[in-house]
Amino acid sequence: MAIKVALAGATGYAGTELTRLLYCHPDIELVSLAAGRREGEKLVVINPQFHGLRYEAFIGLEDLLATEAELIFLALPHGHAMEIVPNLLAAGRRVIDLSADYRLQDVQTFAAWYGKEHCGSEALAQAVYGLPELQDVDWATVRLVANPGCYPTAILLGLAPFLQAGLVKTEGIIVDAKSGVSGAGRSPKLEMLYSEVNENVRAYGVGGVHRHLPEIEQEVSRWTGLDCTITFTPHLIPMTRGILATIYLTPNHTIGTADALQVLERFYQGCPFVHVLPPGSLPNTKAVFGSNHCQLGAVVDGRTGRLIVISVIDNLGKGAAGQAVQNMNLMCGWPEEMGLATPGLFP
Amino acid sequence: MAIKVALAGATGYAGTELTRLLYCHPDIELVSLAAGRREGEKLVVINPQFHGLRYEAFIGLEDLLATEAELIFLALPHGHAMEIVPNLLAAGRRVIDLSADYRLQDVQTFAAWYGKEHCGSEALAQAVYGLPELQDVDWATVRLVANPGCYPTAILLGLAPFLQAGLVKTEGIIVDAKSGVSGAGRSPKLEMLYSEVNENVRAYGVGGVHRHLPEIEQEVSRWTGLDCTITFTPHLIPMTRGILATIYLTPNHTIGTADALQVLERFYQGCPFVHVLPPGSLPNTKAVFGSNHCQLGAVVDGRTGRLIVISVIDNLGKGAAGQAVQNMNLMCGWPEEMGLATPGLFP
Amino acid sequence: MAIKVALAGATGYAGTELTRLLYCHPDIELVSLAAGRREGEKLVVINPQFHGLRYEAFIGLEDLLATEAELIFLALPHGHAMEIVPNLLAAGRRVIDLSADYRLQDVQTFAAWYGKEHCGSEALAQAVYGLPELQDVDWATVRLVANPGCYPTAILLGLAPFLQAGLVKTEGIIVDAKSGVSGAGRSPKLEMLYSEVNENVRAYGVGGVHRHLPEIEQEVSRWTGLDCTITFTPHLIPMTRGILATIYLTPNHTIGTADALQVLERFYQGCPFVHVLPPGSLPNTKAVFGSNHCQLGAVVDGRTGRLIVISVIDNLGKGAAGQAVQNMNLMCGWPEEMGLATPGLFP
Amino acid sequence: MAIKVALAGATGYAGTELTRLLYCHPDIELVSLAAGRREGEKLVVINPQFHGLRYEAFIGLEDLLATEAELIFLALPHGHAMEIVPNLLAAGRRVIDLSADYRLQDVQTFAAWYGKEHCGSEALAQAVYGLPELQDVDWATVRLVANPGCYPTAILLGLAPFLQAGLVKTEGIIVDAKSGVSGAGRSPKLEMLYSEVNENVRAYGVGGVHRHLPEIEQEVSRWTGLDCTITFTPHLIPMTRGILATIYLTPNHTIGTADALQVLERFYQGCPFVHVLPPGSLPNTKAVFGSNHCQLGAVVDGRTGRLIVISVIDNLGKGAAGQAVQNMNLMCGWPEEMGLATPGLFP
Repeated sequence: MAIKVALAGATGYAGTELTRLLYCHPDIELVSLAAGRREGEKLVVINPQFHGLRYEAFIGLEDLLATEAELIFLALPHGHAMEIVPNLLAAGRRVIDLSADYRLQDVQTFAAWYGKEHCGSEALAQAVYGLPELQDVDWATVRLVANPGCYPTAILLGLAPFLQAGLVKTEGIIVDAKSGVSGAGRSPKLEMLYSEVNENVRAYGVGGVHRHLPEIEQEVSRWTGLDCTITFTPHLIPMTRGILATIYLTPNHTIGTADALQVLERFYQGCPFVHVLPPGSLPNTKAVFGSNHCQLGAVVDGRTGRLIVISVIDNLGKGAAGQAVQNMNLMCGWPEEMGLATPGLFP
Repeated sequence: MAIKVALAGATGYAGTELTRLLYCHPDIELVSLAAGRREGEKLVVINPQFHGLRYEAFIGLEDLLATEAELIFLALPHGHAMEIVPNLLAAGRRVIDLSADYRLQDVQTFAAWYGKEHCGSEALAQAVYGLPELQDVDWATVRLVANPGCYPTAILLGLAPFLQAGLVKTEGIIVDAKSGVSGAGRSPKLEMLYSEVNENVRAYGVGGVHRHLPEIEQEVSRWTGLDCTITFTPHLIPMTRGILATIYLTPNHTIGTADALQVLERFYQGCPFVHVLPPGSLPNTKAVFGSNHCQLGAVVDGRTGRLIVISVIDNLGKGAAGQAVQNMNLMCGWPEEMGLATPGLFP
Repeated sequence: MAIKVALAGATGYAGTELTRLLYCHPDIELVSLAAGRREGEKLVVINPQFHGLRYEAFIGLEDLLATEAELIFLALPHGHAMEIVPNLLAAGRRVIDLSADYRLQDVQTFAAWYGKEHCGSEALAQAVYGLPELQDVDWATVRLVANPGCYPTAILLGLAPFLQAGLVKTEGIIVDAKSGVSGAGRSPKLEMLYSEVNENVRAYGVGGVHRHLPEIEQEVSRWTGLDCTITFTPHLIPMTRGILATIYLTPNHTIGTADALQVLERFYQGCPFVHVLPPGSLPNTKAVFGSNHCQLGAVVDGRTGRLIVISVIDNLGKGAAGQAVQNMNLMCGWPEEMGLATPGLFP
Repeated sequence: MAIKVALAGATGYAGTELTRLLYCHPDIELVSLAAGRREGEKLVVINPQFHGLRYEAFIGLEDLLATEAELIFLALPHGHAMEIVPNLLAAGRRVIDLSADYRLQDVQTFAAWYGKEHCGSEALAQAVYGLPELQDVDWATVRLVANPGCYPTAILLGLAPFLQAGLVKTEGIIVDAKSGVSGAGRSPKLEMLYSEVNENVRAYGVGGVHRHLPEIEQEVSRWTGLDCTITFTPHLIPMTRGILATIYLTPNHTIGTADALQVLERFYQGCPFVHVLPPGSLPNTKAVFGSNHCQLGAVVDGRTGRLIVISVIDNLGKGAAGQAVQNMNLMCGWPEEMGLATPGLFP
């Protein structure tokens, strides 16, 4: 029998993609859409692609508890989920939170990187970091998922297998990532105008200041037991969706490209959403556009010995809404691919 | 029980989109992919988004008859389908042809606009023009569908209701259409290079020479019984997918915007893929991106009396692959929306 | 000897392009940049392409009169120029206003279309509409130029020669225009975000409500003595710069494409910025990108008899800043092309 | 008195930009345009932005010697210049070659990376690597300039000052570069079609195989006397023009961002085309679009100690045609900025 779900934050880009995926999912009933600032407005005015669907007006966040939803997705700006998650859990609802609020287990780290005290930390102990390929939890028992950030998803999937295998040094890791601009959200900002973004590329958050860094390092440590401090440079490029992370690693011993690819293939055997490309092929973001897939490639530079790993995802798919649905499937005991089987949309 | 289907021409843009839709369709089994020039090559080399699917190598066109496919989609360049369709039909296969080969009922018109004699005209009598919203055929009996062109789909959906209602003059119709460039196909041409298309807009086929014109006028005549000669100007704009047609009509009598919208709403009542926007809203192509939907808007210009109708589709969705699947659903007696329920992908 | 000029509104898109052109002009001295809301801020923070230039901080609008500038460009939002133009003129300064404030000679028309009373109408009698190719004024005497809108520039250049020649009907004129989004200005709006504009096309201002309409009709009347009411549909397409106007005309008598092109060639003989393409060639916006040029093409549709004229400009070049410099050159008695000789930037 | 120049290879992207710059240059006379495969064709058919210029038909390469040109620009595909340069020099012409033919001083290195023997190596001894900011030659005596590649220009400008200052290690240098696609040239290739490039990013030439590597390492060695082996990963992003290089360096001692910026500022004092941004500012490619400028920024990562340098250029400007004009200015004893003073075109 279909379970009932609700979604709060349906007007942002991640929430919009989640609305689409939930609408197409065969085994759920989407009972309500909530929006913070746009309560009472009509879905189709803001997102006309949903013309013909029946969810006409958004309810307010405070009305979520009054719905019959057993599972609630929160796609709100950082800092809002922590105000309501403890209550939702106390009322027996399961929660998948797409914001950063429950990703960092240490409240001081959270305060340092997000600039505010955590006001819902009593729920932190229940929070499970929802990157299923790097998660061994008993999903049936999970009540609260902290859905990963888009950069951490792309980077951890390319990085963790090599660290876990002890094949590369923990020092000197450099990650250079390129992202479409939808990750910056849907609020009007001068630097996100079409005329500013088009035909332009720029780095931002350079020098170890991007908020996704502590999340990446925490999860490396949790999964592999290793501590590492990563140099991470995100870039905005003129496209809407997609992240490509170029990861520079230093092997402990001389290895070849085939060795590196074998490590990835073994690690992701049986994972329906992570594909390792054959030698000579390198991933491009368009191959995962609109999907929940990740594609990985690797090359060892014969001149310098570096291992270069390339990881691509759709930042709104595997980097946000798709992964949230994947987490729901696992929590509900359904096949991981339910509602997510579509390949990338091309061209 | 799932029926078996095959697809020839899986490497072009329409064929690629069709591969995706057929892969996701719940009630068919895609048994073979054929390619003319790329026989033996691997699908994932050309279309890496399908990494992980099992159709590894393309069969040749001549191998289609040897497959178990009951229904065969042809997404070949114009002029190729007519060479094999009669044989496929004779062998009891049903065919949905995405090319122009069976769209024009008059072989002289075909020869005049496509520059070659029709070599498979014995099948023309069986061909059904596959624009379901303007088609009254008994679908169970259909053996051959001529899947419409992208421009005709967008234009006929906006135009036909007003002509049928006798509300507008048949003279002086002007259609100004804007299309993404994927409609021009996947063969390498200088004028389709990114650096030529980006930040550029141009008209082409100006002055009544675009091949979609006779198709539009034939279908207007078949559906409404009216003859009209249309001024049609297509434009290429810097985007991949999407068509927006702006249709300028001259009402027979003074009408208002509300009257015009009512005509559309009545006409498309019960049509799951065509949505009429409320007064004050006008469609944009992004709302139908990646979907089989069409959105329609209309405005009457109070200063000049003109009726302006705006129609948007995804040229690879409702304008090609999506419509082909819709036609298959009808031929098989399935719900029209099977495998096509997804709203537009946004952003 | 170089004349001294100042520019108010240097932070918007037209003002930014004007800053670039004035910086490169060989015969002027740019003494001050003024900005309304950003007084005191540094130019290079907002427009880093000017790093190395000496205009570091913006002065306020009220400081313009204290500068030595003999000629002042105003690139302010509509409604601001009319508050200061009378004072600037009274102080002996010459003014080129890029806003709409002095384009409409009738104050009631202005109030009806711009929603406010004209508070500087005493200067209207001095205002010269600055489309040089359609202007016979004695430029040496001009004190105030109303620099045309971008759509009117593209449309009038394609339309006026045929009306003046008496070759086409004044009724039933349809103009379908496609514009890059920089014309919408630089203030942050949701619908101008990259993720909303990219891979999207939409019409706006449909049904005779776009503010450029009265300006077009006024200038047709002033130049040709003919009254016409035009159906005008502007569209936003995913590019930054460029306008392509497709103009549909009804010839009074049967004419051919060659006849139409000859009308244009004669009209623009000796005009350095307007180029008529040969038969079979049609203009694209990229050919005029970053320049002050306009390219025109024409085709007569043999099936319907319609004359289709296509006009392209850069909306920030000939459609705004370039034309403003052209007007300055004429006012100063310099060669029209001074500082404007660069062809379009390609690719 | 203006000198006479000719240009061979006027139809490619670099040649097109060079045509524009030479047309606008105040002190030269462009006497002929030559094209290899398109001899006899008209310039404006291929590049309609030059409509109105007088160079109507291309001469053949073999006709170059018959022109009066004292200085000849060659913008031909790799491997063509070396066939004619010795003859041009013998005839007393000066040459600026935009291809790779005379960039590598070692003919075996050339053969290894470009896959063919050097057939014009007798001229190599005269070749001067034309990156003026890293070149101490007596320009008046230069007969042959090897105009640098686009990636080497961006990278060397960001890298050389720190190596020369002895501030960073020569080991472990990583360069991650992002380029617009015009650098891939104008010949029709599937992977350069708009529908393939748009909304896509991919790495290429990964693992030390890009042909610009030996050029970078040769010039580092020539200028600083240091040997280094660089890890270099170029990426193609969906834009036409622009390169952003992110350079990861390991300081020998702890330094701060201010120290790093001071090194750059001192190095580029007096260089009109290289701008060092203040602390907290990072360059974006749009600020140099259409110009001969380079902008540099730097940040030291306090967590890892890495120095991250970011360098942006227009690959067709400072990365090709603009730099060629800069080299001509130096060879002719003119001010370096002549004909190149325009800031970046924005937006």
